[in-house]
Amino acid sequence: MTALSRYVPILDWGRRYSRQALSNDLIAAVIVTIMLIPQSLAYALLAGLPPEAGIYASIAPIILYAIFGTSRALAVGPVAVVSLLTASAVGQVAEQGTAGYAVAALTLAALSGGFLVLLGVLRLGFLANFLSHPVIAGFITASGILIAVSQLKHILGVSASGHTLPEMLNSIYAHLNEVNGITVLIGVLATGFLFWVRGNLKPLLKRLGAGPLLADILTKAGPVAAVVVTTLSVWGFGLADRGVRIVGDVPQSLPPLTLPGVSGELVGALLVPAILISVIGFVESISVAQTLAAKKRQRIDPDQELIGLGAANLGAAFTGGFPVTGGFSRSVVNFDAGAETPAAGIYTAIGLAIAALALTPLVYYLPNATLAATIIVAVLSLVDLSILKKTWGYSRADFTAVAATILLTLVLGVEVGVASGVAISVLLHLYKTSRPHVAEVGLVPGTQHFRNVLRHDVETDPALLTLRVDESLYFVNARFLEDLIQARVTSGSDIRNVVLMFSAVNEVDFSALESLEAINQRLRDMDVGLHLSEVKGPVMDRLRKSHFIDDLNGRVFLSQYDAWQALSHPAPAVRAAQ
Amino acid sequence: MTALSRYVPILDWGRRYSRQALSNDLIAAVIVTIMLIPQSLAYALLAGLPPEAGIYASIAPIILYAIFGTSRALAVGPVAVVSLLTASAVGQVAEQGTAGYAVAALTLAALSGGFLVLLGVLRLGFLANFLSHPVIAGFITASGILIAVSQLKHILGVSASGHTLPEMLNSIYAHLNEVNGITVLIGVLATGFLFWVRGNLKPLLKRLGAGPLLADILTKAGPVAAVVVTTLSVWGFGLADRGVRIVGDVPQSLPPLTLPGVSGELVGALLVPAILISVIGFVESISVAQTLAAKKRQRIDPDQELIGLGAANLGAAFTGGFPVTGGFSRSVVNFDAGAETPAAGIYTAIGLAIAALALTPLVYYLPNATLAATIIVAVLSLVDLSILKKTWGYSRADFTAVAATILLTLVLGVEVGVASGVAISVLLHLYKTSRPHVAEVGLVPGTQHFRNVLRHDVETDPALLTLRVDESLYFVNARFLEDLIQARVTSGSDIRNVVLMFSAVNEVDFSALESLEAINQRLRDMDVGLHLSEVKGPVMDRLRKSHFIDDLNGRVFLSQYDAWQALSHPAPAVRAAQ
Repeated sequence: MTALSRYVPILDWGRRYSRQALSNDLIAAVIVTIMLIPQSLAYALLAGLPPEAGIYASIAPIILYAIFGTSRALAVGPVAVVSLLTASAVGQVAEQGTAGYAVAALTLAALSGGFLVLLGVLRLGFLANFLSHPVIAGFITASGILIAVSQLKHILGVSASGHTLPEMLNSIYAHLNEVNGITVLIGVLATGFLFWVRGNLKPLLKRLGAGPLLADILTKAGPVAAVVVTTLSVWGFGLADRGVRIVGDVPQSLPPLTLPGVSGELVGALLVPAILISVIGFVESISVAQTLAAKKRQRIDPDQELIGLGAANLGAAFTGGFPVTGGFSRSVVNFDAGAETPAAGIYTAIGLAIAALALTPLVYYLPNATLAATIIVAVLSLVDLSILKKTWGYSRADFTAVAATILLTLVLGVEVGVASGVAISVLLHLYKTSRPHVAEVGLVPGTQHFRNVLRHDVETDPALLTLRVDESLYFVNARFLEDLIQARVTSGSDIRNVVLMFSAVNEVDFSALESLEAINQRLRDMDVGLHLSEVKGPVMDRLRKSHFIDDLNGRVFLSQYDAWQALSHPAPAVRAAQ
Repeated sequence: MTALSRYVPILDWGRRYSRQALSNDLIAAVIVTIMLIPQSLAYALLAGLPPEAGIYASIAPIILYAIFGTSRALAVGPVAVVSLLTASAVGQVAEQGTAGYAVAALTLAALSGGFLVLLGVLRLGFLANFLSHPVIAGFITASGILIAVSQLKHILGVSASGHTLPEMLNSIYAHLNEVNGITVLIGVLATGFLFWVRGNLKPLLKRLGAGPLLADILTKAGPVAAVVVTTLSVWGFGLADRGVRIVGDVPQSLPPLTLPGVSGELVGALLVPAILISVIGFVESISVAQTLAAKKRQRIDPDQELIGLGAANLGAAFTGGFPVTGGFSRSVVNFDAGAETPAAGIYTAIGLAIAALALTPLVYYLPNATLAATIIVAVLSLVDLSILKKTWGYSRADFTAVAATILLTLVLGVEVGVASGVAISVLLHLYKTSRPHVAEVGLVPGTQHFRNVLRHDVETDPALLTLRVDESLYFVNARFLEDLIQARVTSGSDIRNVVLMFSAVNEVDFSALESLEAINQRLRDMDVGLHLSEVKGPVMDRLRKSHFIDDLNGRVFLSQYDAWQALSHPAPAVRAAQ
């Protein structure tokens, strides 16, 4: 692999592209294209944009990701959570339906793309790890609920607004008098049908003798069937004249060349949302990519993925789209349909371009309620409250992070929710490390192994206090150890030597160094020795840069057993037997 | 000690108060009172308040701390850094010299007092540990520079303003045409004299035969001498008529009963500064208290200290003061002068009350330049740039935190500076833990001890990979271990068993648990065993709450040596010889 092909992976796999791969990729592309047409329209609706934006956002981004991305199966385009975040961010700077709204969406995509590329070039992909699994799970669940509720207005046929659960419910309640019965009928039937397809069609088809791939494809085509039937109904019965809102005119055009806004005010207002969208989109995408890659023992390069997703978003910004990322359902369909290389994505893009040119008049009578139904059915599969139960059983800190993320996302909105989730995770972690577990240890008889005196039957020596410090020593807990040793050594006057067993100390920062110096000084004043054992290489390297080791009122032992042999008197009986 | 006397320590020591202690406390109180009169006036000037506020802030707070505090020697009152923070915070909501300014200062004290009491009642004193030693050192140094520069206007006799170094220097430069020559003369002479006293008087007095205590007291009385001489000069030569700014009328009164503001707007604007002042004041105070207590082997209870300082600030809020804390110089003088109990503080308060009633007319002609000189000399002793050198040698992360704190405090102000310092320390710590050190370990021959194969001559087995993970496993680094093991096991096909030596793993959170489950699954698919060794009690308790241990594709060994004996084949020669 050359240096260039590391940054442009298409140069690597493109060179070895076979006829077999071509055939597999083409089949996958046809299936994905059919599935993406309604999905793209629906996510544009969710983002508050005209329907064609959803198709445009699936063309250039897919091609750019195929060139720069490292996943073989990832399908990039509009996804539910990112569309929701887009609606929330853009809604704060522009009125929905205005030209300013569309420009703000382009700007958001451009900022997000630029930020992702920057992270990738600086190789900062690990930053996404700050989103813990519980925070992601809580956020996705809460977003699923928010998205489903946000689509209720289309099912009811009312004009409601709001970006938080209370706002949306209030707004729907205030507009209940506008409810359109026929729209409700279409929406409820479409939703019910799609739930039935999702839950029951595949087993039914299999019982009827269809192969698994065919059953799968027909199941995924459920939304297409709903689109066709409801569009024909609206057209045939003239329901648009009876208050059913429809998609209407969609321009027949390839993706236009567009320019994101560059005003300082707009960029300033969208910068923080863009960073949030980038990080969340990246986390969602890389999870999907890694899951699929693991199945074929392929490797994903997280930093190159940042560049691939960044290029895709920049592409969306200049071709009439909005922020995109690698989506779960479309990628799984692509993978299951047999896509072998990112070329499948390029063929999908061509398919969508043809659809944008030729098929858009066909969706004129498509009711918004049908699109809302496809969104609701798709996102409710994201809602998984079992994470609350799982974390409750395992760790109260993780449970707190999930519960707070879900609650704050629903009540205060997506941005506050996810930011609070990260902050709470970090603070809980710091809180835990601020009061470290410190065990007094003794020798497990017949071994050279030392364990907690409270949990194991071990040998100890009253003149020797050995403390195993179960945490890195740094500013948050520096004073803790000082207080602890002070309390132990003044209360037990027999102690002549203190050994700090550093097997679990992975860092000693400057604050902790000053605390160790203070401990050393105090023990020296009391004529008690201070020793260290099992200090790890990197920690020892660091301590040697200070005067602490020179000034130490005792020795540094390689192993705790060495310290025990040197310092414990009289030798316990069992040890003599060894 | 009863439960009540734990919260009201005066009930403990007051009951055993002896005649000897009375005599020692009285002597200390007289010395501290004389020192506090100019200091209180000066810190009121620094805070932007009328001079009497400084004296009032030293009376009720001292008494309340004596009742609720746990330090025997701490002297509470206005201090330089907290006065600077007060000026910065109050200056943002009110114009200096107005009634609103004084009310805002009272409100700040009330909020700070309430917050401290709340922290104390909730036993959250450990939160102060988030300020690392380097951040505190950097902040104090930068504050010292800011305070000294803020006093230059009084030395020059100009009206300048600003809360950051560039603002102050710009403002002084803009007002240079107002410089008053006589004021400069007084200011420079007073500053020079005070520096001379600080550096040279004590050795001189000792050479002249004075005892160390007397020499110390005379040295600390230097500011009083400067006050007396410059006041007499201004009065005698009529310098006030020649443009020298003087303290002027100070009401002859005991501390008045005052009420802090309660408007939502004012409270909202001062809440964050109040929290900051509380934390910084607490950190300064507890450091002084612990240093002095250690000298007499007394104990300080940090949570009770919060209540003591909180009560002192509430007292300041209702008696015409402003935020206070335990000061370094005044406490050291109190300690050195022989104060035995907090009663010394009560006597000092009585002395200051007499001064407020009887002596205030005497400072009418006191020039502001003299007060500025006492502040400059006092705060320049806080400036210690050697922390930069010390941290540079020890750890780049700590150096970065110090340097950023100093720079941002000087350039962007005290609040941004200290908040950035804390944020940078936390982020650098998380960054370090996000890429943990993982060592492959082998057996140190002739022992049961395992060390890094890269640093020690150890025995290994090509079919057994033992990794010592040198960090707690949590969300920030959960994926890191997954990637690492994936890379090691696919590249080295001989490996039949992987042992994760958990001696340094102090926590496994939910994110890390999910990563371990993924690792276990992947290794099982490759027919490689996954084992754990030296899992600590608290970590094992946690893991048992999940299904991980049941599903583990291997065993959990008490010690790494047990794992080695069970899994390494063929037995290495040295081991057989044991």
